[in-house]
Amino acid sequence: MKGEEKMVAIGEISLMPGYGSTQAVVLKEDAEADRQLTMFVGQAEYAAIAKEKGLVKSERPLTHELYLNILKKILFKFQRIEIFSMREDVFYARVIFAFKGREYTVDSRPSDAVALALNRKISVMVNADLLHPAPSQQDMQEYEKFIKRAKF
Amino acid sequence: MKGEEKMVAIGEISLMPGYGSTQAVVLKEDAEADRQLTMFVGQAEYAAIAKEKGLVKSERPLTHELYLNILKKILFKFQRIEIFSMREDVFYARVIFAFKGREYTVDSRPSDAVALALNRKISVMVNADLLHPAPSQQDMQEYEKFIKRAKF
Repeated sequence: MKGEEKMVAIGEISLMPGYGSTQAVVLKEDAEADRQLTMFVGQAEYAAIAKEKGLVKSERPLTHELYLNILKKILFKFQRIEIFSMREDVFYARVIFAFKGREYTVDSRPSDAVALALNRKISVMVNADLLHPAPSQQDMQEYEKFIKRAKF
Repeated sequence: MKGEEKMVAIGEISLMPGYGSTQAVVLKEDAEADRQLTMFVGQAEYAAIAKEKGLVKSERPLTHELYLNILKKILFKFQRIEIFSMREDVFYARVIFAFKGREYTVDSRPSDAVALALNRKISVMVNADLLHPAPSQQDMQEYEKFIKRAKF
């Protein structure tokens, strides 16, 4: 399966605080790209990504910061994240890291993976098949029906 | 400061899905204890703790599970968590872990620390000064005023 995936490196991660009736994170190859992955996420996931983008502050560590603070104390290197698949409205991502010269992969929700990537400044890769044109205002209502079922 | 803290080992962690107008996690020394720490938490934090208690399922790893899956792959040992202080309505906790024979401490929100402790089956310690009698139905309204400002 991995052989079939054409992965695109994401250069632009933007936040949409009021996208339809919820909040979204938009991933694009670059600011001018005409295709994107729109991730509708929960409040906690949105807050984590917004904090990494420097848009909100919170005095105490959020969940991902707690664990990244732990990992900072030991010899550990994150490599990249990959949002690689969607099956039955569920999106799948993985985090690739190295430890003692070996490469490891763990499953992740895309929203967790994006917060991690922003924190560690590592590459965000998305399967090209998952990218879509930005929905017009007209398309939004239809798109939201799908996206309400989808899980990021 | 650490020397002044009398820490109590928590043996009973229970969930209150509708405690007042929100959801809470209650920590007690044991089921019969007459003092407790009532933690009013957000939905994501509640879901993480409920999943660790086996009360809800989700097919994909939550944030804390992603990182615990990473840490499981490397030589790593969590020791205990401590909810040790409250200042200006903010509760403070820390996670103590060992790596290569050295002990480390990282700051944590109490809700993250409790989810971690349930996952790794390690001790939950609470500063005795933070425990209070269970609020009666009558007290709840008053207590909620405080608790709405407090941050777990």
